[in-house]
Amino acid sequence: MSEGWRLAKGWRYAGVHCGVRPDPQRKDLALFVSDRPAAAAGVYTQNRVCAAPVQVCRARTPRDGVCGVVICSGNANACTGEQGLADAREMTRLLAAQLGANEEHALVASTGIIGRPLPMAALRSGIPAAYAKLDETPAALQAAAEAILTTDTGIKVETAEAHESGRTYRLTGVAKGAAMIGPNMATMLGLVLTDAAVTATDLQPILKAAAERSFNCISVEGHTSTNDTVFLLANGAAGGPPLTGAALSRFAAAVEAVCQRLAQAIVNDAEGATKVLTLNVEGLRTEAEARRIAKAVSESALVKTALFGNDPNWGRIVSAAGYAGVPFEEKDCSLTLAGELLYDRGRPLPFDAAALSAKLKGLRFLEATLRFTLGAASCRFWTCDLSYDYVRLNADYTT
Amino acid sequence: MSEGWRLAKGWRYAGVHCGVRPDPQRKDLALFVSDRPAAAAGVYTQNRVCAAPVQVCRARTPRDGVCGVVICSGNANACTGEQGLADAREMTRLLAAQLGANEEHALVASTGIIGRPLPMAALRSGIPAAYAKLDETPAALQAAAEAILTTDTGIKVETAEAHESGRTYRLTGVAKGAAMIGPNMATMLGLVLTDAAVTATDLQPILKAAAERSFNCISVEGHTSTNDTVFLLANGAAGGPPLTGAALSRFAAAVEAVCQRLAQAIVNDAEGATKVLTLNVEGLRTEAEARRIAKAVSESALVKTALFGNDPNWGRIVSAAGYAGVPFEEKDCSLTLAGELLYDRGRPLPFDAAALSAKLKGLRFLEATLRFTLGAASCRFWTCDLSYDYVRLNADYTT
Repeated sequence: MSEGWRLAKGWRYAGVHCGVRPDPQRKDLALFVSDRPAAAAGVYTQNRVCAAPVQVCRARTPRDGVCGVVICSGNANACTGEQGLADAREMTRLLAAQLGANEEHALVASTGIIGRPLPMAALRSGIPAAYAKLDETPAALQAAAEAILTTDTGIKVETAEAHESGRTYRLTGVAKGAAMIGPNMATMLGLVLTDAAVTATDLQPILKAAAERSFNCISVEGHTSTNDTVFLLANGAAGGPPLTGAALSRFAAAVEAVCQRLAQAIVNDAEGATKVLTLNVEGLRTEAEARRIAKAVSESALVKTALFGNDPNWGRIVSAAGYAGVPFEEKDCSLTLAGELLYDRGRPLPFDAAALSAKLKGLRFLEATLRFTLGAASCRFWTCDLSYDYVRLNADYTT
Repeated sequence: MSEGWRLAKGWRYAGVHCGVRPDPQRKDLALFVSDRPAAAAGVYTQNRVCAAPVQVCRARTPRDGVCGVVICSGNANACTGEQGLADAREMTRLLAAQLGANEEHALVASTGIIGRPLPMAALRSGIPAAYAKLDETPAALQAAAEAILTTDTGIKVETAEAHESGRTYRLTGVAKGAAMIGPNMATMLGLVLTDAAVTATDLQPILKAAAERSFNCISVEGHTSTNDTVFLLANGAAGGPPLTGAALSRFAAAVEAVCQRLAQAIVNDAEGATKVLTLNVEGLRTEAEARRIAKAVSESALVKTALFGNDPNWGRIVSAAGYAGVPFEEKDCSLTLAGELLYDRGRPLPFDAAALSAKLKGLRFLEATLRFTLGAASCRFWTCDLSYDYVRLNADYTT
């Protein structure tokens, strides 16, 4: 899997078990370290109840001079009060100390069970031990990508390469998802590391826009977690002056593409998912309108159970669009599912439901398009089905 | 079951099979007829895609002089275009013709599969046949209550009696729910018939307020249907002049109480439900804020699966409150579940999770209270769990 990765220069990785989790087979600590000061941007959960590492990093980004990121899995360090804040800061201090840097120049994230204090003894020995293992190889990245997982069934890594003024820069994207995925990045962690030279001031809006069109366009169940975090870090190891103008726009497009591939990987690995639906909502007056409709349809339990049941239920999709709070008339709306036009400007068309259901049964990835006649704005969302396994995984979470 | 019913005077009922459904054992047509002109109010789905009967009745209420209501189940007459509107009007004309009344004085509702034309031949013979069976007995009401059901497992009837100025008036409430229940009354039908004298002008705001605190405070999955309708009809058969002042306020409270009992009956019979949670959200600045939080928690798939799994997962409830879009700090919030304080002003308390889970396992009806310290406004919601059966019922809907 890691064969084809062409990783950004100047980054080293480690993923180890240090004791946050009881199971010694499960990695629970990851480091992502730059060999030179990097510019950093972050976007975070919009939940009012937000975890300690989110509070710490929100105050630290965007900024220049960042040395690296430390992430633990198994414990979210959320709902942990003043002690949680002190623990999150200590995690950054432990990483920064290895580099002789100030704690302000390290970033931190956590994911896992909430409401329990972090086992700091494990992290105090674990962070220096992980630091000693840092390496720039794909295998090291794979270990780090494993160490941030919770109920995911596999790692999520996406890479990209671009050329600009005779220089090559690369993007290395890593993410975890699975439980509680919703727009606004519910219990989702993502990092995009690059060797491009970009200022922190430019990075922040690029990350915000990319997250808005990727991680914030996926829905598993609409629950926004306390810990969601995406970092974008640029260390400039590819050389040259900071990107500007059209080169910066091309960089932004590359970041968005990597984020979209990571977001799709998260939906594809959502708890219990057997189908991934790409939903295009087109022809609205504004992107915000298109997003509201895409979100309502993507989060509908009826749409998601129909998807699980291979039921070409156009009525559930159209009626979910109808309650999104966007004004439209039925005649403004058409729906195509898996290439078949089922609903044409307010009228259901006759179709062979059994044949279409059989077709859906054979597809893991499918596409639907809701087309309106109200404007030129659009939005693309990714969602998955609601299966028995989703219920099982979430009803038995603590046992 | 119908033994204890004390029904409003001057109302007659019928419930028959006429052929909207293929199964001759399933009743599919109900009539509710007043022996004198009644004042009528209606509240309807807020879905932009709304069924033909909703469009017809929205234009007809509030009004005086209504003779009755005709309802068919098995076909929703939604997404059926101009023909659907003509069919809905014809249903009211068929009922009104029996009474020598104008079609404008009859109301109509439909529930069932969408996108298919109504089998009008069945209704053209069925409505006169049902009319011939009208009766004022509890057995007749029971037949009518059965005839409006879809995937419900039982009828929903709630009655009430009140005394005013030496006269007794009664309320007869009937509802159906089950699939697609959400705030804003997803595929939910309700009727409250009374023999009190109330003007149509007074009825409309009373029904709107009662629906807001009952049918719009329940959540099964948050999907708003195309057909939701609640009617309130008052025929004055109890005698006396129209209620005013404090007597009218007491009438409004009685209507709200009947609507709340019907709403709870709907949640209790929701598809696949094994638990009913009453959620109190208290101490907000406005009722709208309390409602937003109650809705977010009630619709969370993670809260609903935890409920199914008897998992006292305070974190899912608190974090759902956190993403409702209402500003608060963690220290403003406390949570009690099944009588136990689990989260106290921002701090999770230690508790015996296994013992509390065992307690939850023994309860079908349970209560949770989210208490804030921001004001005096509150909201009460009713929700159910998300079970394997919910997925089964909704994935296999068409088969």
